[in-house]
Amino acid sequence: MAVARAARRTTATMSGVPTVALPTNVGTLVVQAPHEKGTVSSIAQLFTVLGATVLDSAHFSDPVSRRLFQRIQFDLGLGPDRDALERELGALASQQALQWRVCYGDRRKRVGILVSKQEHCLYDLLIRHRAGELACDIAVIVSNHADAASVAAHFNVPFHHVPVTQATKVQAELAAAAVLESAGVDLVVLARYMQILSPALVARFPHRIINVHHSFLPAFVGGNAYRQAHEKGVKMIGATSHYVTAELDQGPIIEQATIRCAHRDTVDDLVRKGRDLEKQVLAAAVRWHLEDRVQVHDGKTVVFD
Amino acid sequence: MAVARAARRTTATMSGVPTVALPTNVGTLVVQAPHEKGTVSSIAQLFTVLGATVLDSAHFSDPVSRRLFQRIQFDLGLGPDRDALERELGALASQQALQWRVCYGDRRKRVGILVSKQEHCLYDLLIRHRAGELACDIAVIVSNHADAASVAAHFNVPFHHVPVTQATKVQAELAAAAVLESAGVDLVVLARYMQILSPALVARFPHRIINVHHSFLPAFVGGNAYRQAHEKGVKMIGATSHYVTAELDQGPIIEQATIRCAHRDTVDDLVRKGRDLEKQVLAAAVRWHLEDRVQVHDGKTVVFD
Amino acid sequence: MAVARAARRTTATMSGVPTVALPTNVGTLVVQAPHEKGTVSSIAQLFTVLGATVLDSAHFSDPVSRRLFQRIQFDLGLGPDRDALERELGALASQQALQWRVCYGDRRKRVGILVSKQEHCLYDLLIRHRAGELACDIAVIVSNHADAASVAAHFNVPFHHVPVTQATKVQAELAAAAVLESAGVDLVVLARYMQILSPALVARFPHRIINVHHSFLPAFVGGNAYRQAHEKGVKMIGATSHYVTAELDQGPIIEQATIRCAHRDTVDDLVRKGRDLEKQVLAAAVRWHLEDRVQVHDGKTVVFD
Amino acid sequence: MAVARAARRTTATMSGVPTVALPTNVGTLVVQAPHEKGTVSSIAQLFTVLGATVLDSAHFSDPVSRRLFQRIQFDLGLGPDRDALERELGALASQQALQWRVCYGDRRKRVGILVSKQEHCLYDLLIRHRAGELACDIAVIVSNHADAASVAAHFNVPFHHVPVTQATKVQAELAAAAVLESAGVDLVVLARYMQILSPALVARFPHRIINVHHSFLPAFVGGNAYRQAHEKGVKMIGATSHYVTAELDQGPIIEQATIRCAHRDTVDDLVRKGRDLEKQVLAAAVRWHLEDRVQVHDGKTVVFD
Repeated sequence: MAVARAARRTTATMSGVPTVALPTNVGTLVVQAPHEKGTVSSIAQLFTVLGATVLDSAHFSDPVSRRLFQRIQFDLGLGPDRDALERELGALASQQALQWRVCYGDRRKRVGILVSKQEHCLYDLLIRHRAGELACDIAVIVSNHADAASVAAHFNVPFHHVPVTQATKVQAELAAAAVLESAGVDLVVLARYMQILSPALVARFPHRIINVHHSFLPAFVGGNAYRQAHEKGVKMIGATSHYVTAELDQGPIIEQATIRCAHRDTVDDLVRKGRDLEKQVLAAAVRWHLEDRVQVHDGKTVVFD
Repeated sequence: MAVARAARRTTATMSGVPTVALPTNVGTLVVQAPHEKGTVSSIAQLFTVLGATVLDSAHFSDPVSRRLFQRIQFDLGLGPDRDALERELGALASQQALQWRVCYGDRRKRVGILVSKQEHCLYDLLIRHRAGELACDIAVIVSNHADAASVAAHFNVPFHHVPVTQATKVQAELAAAAVLESAGVDLVVLARYMQILSPALVARFPHRIINVHHSFLPAFVGGNAYRQAHEKGVKMIGATSHYVTAELDQGPIIEQATIRCAHRDTVDDLVRKGRDLEKQVLAAAVRWHLEDRVQVHDGKTVVFD
Repeated sequence: MAVARAARRTTATMSGVPTVALPTNVGTLVVQAPHEKGTVSSIAQLFTVLGATVLDSAHFSDPVSRRLFQRIQFDLGLGPDRDALERELGALASQQALQWRVCYGDRRKRVGILVSKQEHCLYDLLIRHRAGELACDIAVIVSNHADAASVAAHFNVPFHHVPVTQATKVQAELAAAAVLESAGVDLVVLARYMQILSPALVARFPHRIINVHHSFLPAFVGGNAYRQAHEKGVKMIGATSHYVTAELDQGPIIEQATIRCAHRDTVDDLVRKGRDLEKQVLAAAVRWHLEDRVQVHDGKTVVFD
Repeated sequence: MAVARAARRTTATMSGVPTVALPTNVGTLVVQAPHEKGTVSSIAQLFTVLGATVLDSAHFSDPVSRRLFQRIQFDLGLGPDRDALERELGALASQQALQWRVCYGDRRKRVGILVSKQEHCLYDLLIRHRAGELACDIAVIVSNHADAASVAAHFNVPFHHVPVTQATKVQAELAAAAVLESAGVDLVVLARYMQILSPALVARFPHRIINVHHSFLPAFVGGNAYRQAHEKGVKMIGATSHYVTAELDQGPIIEQATIRCAHRDTVDDLVRKGRDLEKQVLAAAVRWHLEDRVQVHDGKTVVFD
């Protein structure tokens, strides 16, 4: 029963995995648990017993929360079946309060992108995807403006125009959510989407919506961050990618980057410089998420990059 | 009369200038004015008329404030005397609402350093000074702790221990101020000085007190910035040097720097990484100030680096 | 008549200038001269006499070569005509060995892009152009592969496929050159163009061909720079944009950028990281060139960024 | 016997370990081996069997060399003795071609610093050591100049002046080596030491001499790297820390850093900027070495930072 539950959970919550030409029986195990003496070796031993090869592993013991975070990439080869691994993990989990998930390289995650008028992040993700940087299928693009339609067409991605007005905000969001769900999306990426999502929509994709904010949070929350930065006279601007939670601009930070600026930079210059940062931190966050490198605990992320 | 005032002001407010082996008649003119059509050429022409050579010049026209900022390094050679230049500038200033100051390479600014227990910024400034990076005399070191005495002795700088307690805070500050003034200090550097200066002391050194704050302001104002950063889970930490004004941590920013951090970094790691940033931004701000590269307008700085 | 000449010269050497909504009588003067006492003020005075406004100016006196480099952005307003300015500059030049050129914001430079199979730099330039970052017209895209045709079509830029084989190399280059010249190109950008240009072609566009090299030159010249970097075990990789000269990978460097790498990074990871650097340094070089911010002297560049 | 050898080897090759207030039975195991299926779990299991706690582990499987690199920090607690661990490791090593070493937090490595006239790296290491950043004892400072004597005295470190002339080069190096060995030095740090070490001396401290080079190697090998950089007109300069091998400037790179420069920067400016990089990369390399985070294979390093 534990087995069945685990298997279902995996199917439900993440329907694919990093890959880029990984051999077909390669998978990734992600574990979070209270840090007990034997946990690390129990997990390692499990792979030995099954005859699997550990290809790569990363491990973090948080001295503050006393929790253990692990990411193990393994190859089951021709040997054990996937059910056997999940059975063993289920058994371990029931003894040691382990949270875990396993993803395999032959199932790619499906991504939905939400975008407004600014197209730089959208283009960036699509070009990286085409270059093989992002191990996923881009399932659908949704926008509250029609502009991105030709971009979507150029990259052969289905496009849905869902206009949003003050009056139709609630229905529009429901429509967008319906598109995302019917596309079987595992991850939602807000590529400069200028609408605030409702808590209800956020709750449907827990730690599976990634947003990019145009400042080095927690500085300059809210809108017009570049104007705020210009008025303050800062000498660096930044950008932040984070998981979306119910509280605006407060979700767990995945990646940040900064660049120098100077008195000569107008707000337009900051916007231009910032676009490069936004692309960079959003693409990194998406890539790491797709490769199961990000875990969340207590409002913060552990990123095994 | 305008001339005389200008000359006195120069003498009083800045007793020296960048130098590092500059020939003896080299000076720096710093100008701020409303941006009018002829201002730039009037100033350039003034040097021609006097027969001086323009060695270097930098210019910024702020499109927002419609103000002109200039820094001109010149060589009077054997020709005109310094009075002639200041007379001409005075005449120009009275016509064109120019604010200006001139400093010469043969008079070095005098610097007083305030420090508490942490010595990294103090050491850094003293070592850079010894290496010739900072065109000034280190006139005095003042600390509320005795620890820095041996550092001061090693670098042959006069040291004053001015203990501060809750009860003696006011008198202690008066004592520190007296030390700084009797040392003829042009610039006060707070090298991780853990006491908040009173508005009265700040007013004595307008835009001539430089502080270093251990975050990329405006994020994490106040104390314990590294702890705040750790709790927030940011992926970059920073440091900021700024002029001190009456409002805590709000003065014009001179320089900022950031460095990556990760989930593995404990608060102690952030403190360690941050020390490097603090040294870097404080030293840059002090160097630029000493070389008359920084101007302040409307709560922000123009830095001709 | 003078008018006609000036217009022709401008057309021949540079048919346009930065603009992005600059008022119509705004121009940029670029000057290089031996550093003599009066040069700076003579130029400044010239604008006063003509009644023009200096909007921005930058100045560099190279202490090694004893040369002066200047870039002045000015507004002629409704006052003097462009001929008057050029006449004055011509007169000054004949006295003071000045090299100069003037460009006006109402004439945009025309750019030709050469590209091979890798499309990231091509896309990057086209997207930045569409976002208003690059003050030019993209006149034509030429490729030795057909792949980029759909990209060109998406951005409405004329495309020419000029296949190159060992046997047809010479004719192919002539064909490409003919396309560039019939498109009236002022600047040629090699956006990861994998063919080496002949000295004859390079000579047609002196300091008007910009290339991007995938290492921090002078490290790892030639091909396969990422493989070389991986074998050496460096901890940073880089990219370099430079003007093309007859000597391979040795032209004046315009911009460089680096990023950290680690033992975990495969050659493919370096290629991925490097793509971001390549886009960044190429776009910066192109933007600066288009805004007349780059000057060349003695195999090096002066960049007024 | 294997046990005894292992123990002796540990004593001989590394007499201490990172610590900074680690509990007394905490140690670090460093392993390098051909990547076989069971190796990772065999090691993990070993700690379980002994009843030790794995505090932290890092793992790298090099897909090119097919080698496994591991660093495991563990706590033996009150349980197993150190001999038991080394016996088990010895047994494992004999089966699986494992190279390993174990270091404990209660024995600090001893460091000898060689320095010439430039003191910035020397100061930097001593100040970081005093601040608790470097888990070692600074055993001795050796210089071919007398200048550093007062620095050594200020930090209470034994100092030896070993002058070097063309005629006495060989004897001088022997004298320096004798000082280092009588001080029981585990690691030699060349903190801008301007003498080239002989292959014989290098061979005495295999991968235990760290040097800092003033360029982003492999660019600008040899001396005067800043002058070379200035002449080339690069837009970034760098610094590199590396293990010293018999071939000059070719040893395994541990860390690199770069900083922007521009046409305005004179050679002196590059020297100034470079000093900051040199301090940074040397200190990082020394810290990582002291914490057993660096492994060498095939002329490159694996750094578990």
